Amino acid sequence: MPELRHDPIQRRWVIIATERGRRPSDFVKLEPDQSGGFCPFDEGNESKTPPEVYAIRRPGTKPDQPGWDVRVVPNKFPALMIEGDENREGVGIFDKMNGIGAHEVVIESPNHDISLSDQSLEHFEKIVRTYQLRLLDLKKDLRFKYVLIFKNQGITAGASLSHPHTQIIATPVTPRVVSMELESARKHYELKERCLFCDIIRQEMENGERVICEVDGMVAIAPFASRFPFEVFIAPTKHSHDFCELDKNGITALSKCMKEVLTRLKLALNDPPYNFMLHTCPNVEARSRRANYWTTLEHDFHWHFEIIPRLVRTAGFEWGTGFYINPTPPEDAAKYLREIDINAGG
Amino acid sequence: MPELRHDPIQRRWVIIATERGRRPSDFVKLEPDQSGGFCPFDEGNESKTPPEVYAIRRPGTKPDQPGWDVRVVPNKFPALMIEGDENREGVGIFDKMNGIGAHEVVIESPNHDISLSDQSLEHFEKIVRTYQLRLLDLKKDLRFKYVLIFKNQGITAGASLSHPHTQIIATPVTPRVVSMELESARKHYELKERCLFCDIIRQEMENGERVICEVDGMVAIAPFASRFPFEVFIAPTKHSHDFCELDKNGITALSKCMKEVLTRLKLALNDPPYNFMLHTCPNVEARSRRANYWTTLEHDFHWHFEIIPRLVRTAGFEWGTGFYINPTPPEDAAKYLREIDINAGG
Repeated sequence: MPELRHDPIQRRWVIIATERGRRPSDFVKLEPDQSGGFCPFDEGNESKTPPEVYAIRRPGTKPDQPGWDVRVVPNKFPALMIEGDENREGVGIFDKMNGIGAHEVVIESPNHDISLSDQSLEHFEKIVRTYQLRLLDLKKDLRFKYVLIFKNQGITAGASLSHPHTQIIATPVTPRVVSMELESARKHYELKERCLFCDIIRQEMENGERVICEVDGMVAIAPFASRFPFEVFIAPTKHSHDFCELDKNGITALSKCMKEVLTRLKLALNDPPYNFMLHTCPNVEARSRRANYWTTLEHDFHWHFEIIPRLVRTAGFEWGTGFYINPTPPEDAAKYLREIDINAGG
Repeated sequence: MPELRHDPIQRRWVIIATERGRRPSDFVKLEPDQSGGFCPFDEGNESKTPPEVYAIRRPGTKPDQPGWDVRVVPNKFPALMIEGDENREGVGIFDKMNGIGAHEVVIESPNHDISLSDQSLEHFEKIVRTYQLRLLDLKKDLRFKYVLIFKNQGITAGASLSHPHTQIIATPVTPRVVSMELESARKHYELKERCLFCDIIRQEMENGERVICEVDGMVAIAPFASRFPFEVFIAPTKHSHDFCELDKNGITALSKCMKEVLTRLKLALNDPPYNFMLHTCPNVEARSRRANYWTTLEHDFHWHFEIIPRLVRTAGFEWGTGFYINPTPPEDAAKYLREIDINAGG
């Protein structure tokens, strides 16, 4: 069973994957093995993954057989284990708990070589709808306080398999990054009775110089204090704290907007490695044993995607301080991305 | 002039290096150019760096001439600029200020090919003493609230020149990571009237399973909640909040301890890329315009070095949550490092 351990100095949780137990010799080669041969995510290899938990299938096809458009399976090497209880425990000055949680893979397409930006709009919508359905389902497990949806595209961004996929990790604690965002938004609301994110989005849309594109109520912005070159923030212009509230039209709008942004990044930066992460409100129904847990959230969050192209390395300065050196002003990044002719290329 | 910009959601500062203005085409190749040819840090090339601000020199030699053991120069491409005032300013909902600060390079040796772990103890002490003297000098500039000393070893760890060097960045704000540590330690002291770090060190030394080595009052530990495989924490066993307090014997002890740890890492992990960062108390003499600035610190900090071998990639999960998946339990890492025979290898 993996362990969750808490650092009392930085007040952050770490997953110690005790069952992997990697020895020094396992780290000699940093590059993951991107073997050109067998892929467990290809259509026809369904038996090589754990049984699917969800799939969008063509009529008449059976689970764990060919015939799917999008397929979700548990991760074969999960960072957290689905069975068990928290078992929170003190270890002298430290705290630990069982590494319970869920770790799933959304196989975005049977097509091994298609990038997310090149999916048809219709297929992109199926992927986004799948994210939403898995989130809704995982939130029913009241042990899970947060569900993170994220994508690692390219080796530099941490991908170990090249078949297009997204990952989902449900955690028994609210992650520090999310707590920080909730706290900032709550403080702002207490002071102004307005959503912090709504205020930022309104200011950015009025100013315009950091806006990359706006599509049917979804806006893509290069954040004022971007940590990384060509970082992108995508959110609904209308207030919504919960990604699961997004309706059919909203899914279409988000798919159009993300597809456009990913296409612009691909053309501007020569198909860069990237990560994206969905930030949405925590699981408010989850049991809580902690005083600072959030129970009312409507005004305290505004869901959004963060996209981070992995173009520069983080080094000692970033790790030592938590602040970042970004060589590309976001105004320049937004201008480059706006001016890309997306009909000329890919 | 670079800008410091504040993110109101994550409450973190970012340096926007406006004068670099990197275009998309600058990012096509990620690897820095490690040209095997000319090196500006080699002895004899002193004129190729900005004039030195400090050097340990052999008797009779002149500044910016050969004859030095350790040499400190301003960074030719500084992230922050030494001239100017803060000019704090609101931009609607955002905050910005001038990117003032210092950015220096400690050239650890005239020898282009020697790694830090292979320096003689005597030379290692000169490097540590240089860190201390630069810290003391930079703290005299009351615009600087914090001085970070850090090393990027190897391309994967962010080094762009292979000649052995350490970097120093003085910043006009206290970095978030340091503020968090100060706050944790202060809260612990308020509750217990004991230093948080002293409590952790005492518990770890009694338990022993995560201790890597102890040398004359300096201890190296694999932290209980290590974020990364083979992460190391080095601190004095006796309470001290300020690295500048370290006396001559302390410098010898720290040099011995760091040299031993770096040698163990080198032998165990085949000369891995790594970062290290010194965490020490902020500049208490600095002018402050912020209410939450720290003025009394004796019990609120305990200086330490963090060493992070760069063996695994951070991906979407880490960026999206601020917590980490570590495949190597720190107990295993400490055991491997303890059991390395440091007299057998390098």
